[in-house]
Amino acid sequence: MKTNAINLAEKLAKFSEHWSPRVIAEMNDYQFKLVKLQGEFVWHSHEHTDEVFLVVQGEMEIGFRDCDVVLRAGEMFVVPKGVEHITRASSECHAMIIEPRGVINTGEADSVLTAQNNVWI
Amino acid sequence: MKTNAINLAEKLAKFSEHWSPRVIAEMNDYQFKLVKLQGEFVWHSHEHTDEVFLVVQGEMEIGFRDCDVVLRAGEMFVVPKGVEHITRASSECHAMIIEPRGVINTGEADSVLTAQNNVWI
Repeated sequence: MKTNAINLAEKLAKFSEHWSPRVIAEMNDYQFKLVKLQGEFVWHSHEHTDEVFLVVQGEMEIGFRDCDVVLRAGEMFVVPKGVEHITRASSECHAMIIEPRGVINTGEADSVLTAQNNVWI
Repeated sequence: MKTNAINLAEKLAKFSEHWSPRVIAEMNDYQFKLVKLQGEFVWHSHEHTDEVFLVVQGEMEIGFRDCDVVLRAGEMFVVPKGVEHITRASSECHAMIIEPRGVINTGEADSVLTAQNNVWI
């Protein structure tokens, strides 16, 4: 068993790429990932799972077809499975994503922003 | 679909009891709970699931039979399933717990600290 705490700020200091989630922990078959967002992602959905965003620093927006949700540091949101969404951040935002192992960042959408999966830091 | 962000500080302001987790969100069959810790809990384990602690404010310790892990704000830890542990906090600490729906706080241990399950705020 690993016996060190996982420090989010230390992990965030290890990468700078936007839209490129890095895995920091696993709980059963779920993963905790850190991501840096800036600009606008692509519309997509995850047909088989909900997806959680928890903002660590900055501010982001989760856009839906009929509304937008603003998330600031210390705020979280559960995107329901199958619901189309897009993430945006006018300034760089640091967030944690929690979802089952194997989920692709662009979901059902084919995109140049599709990131390599399961990259640990 | 709920369209409001879940603000951890706002939710934490809604209760004061120690060792009494409150559910704030669900992702698939997992729950996000907030808890206020102060003093020492009881030794217990969860035979069927890992359990995540993420400290929001203050400092806590997760004791294992052969070591202790200190967690400060912005740090998390995954307690592996089946591993005996105890949580402690010398001053009040606010943390988020992430685990499957239905997990009892005292796990396999019978205790006066066993909290009512599935209490939402």
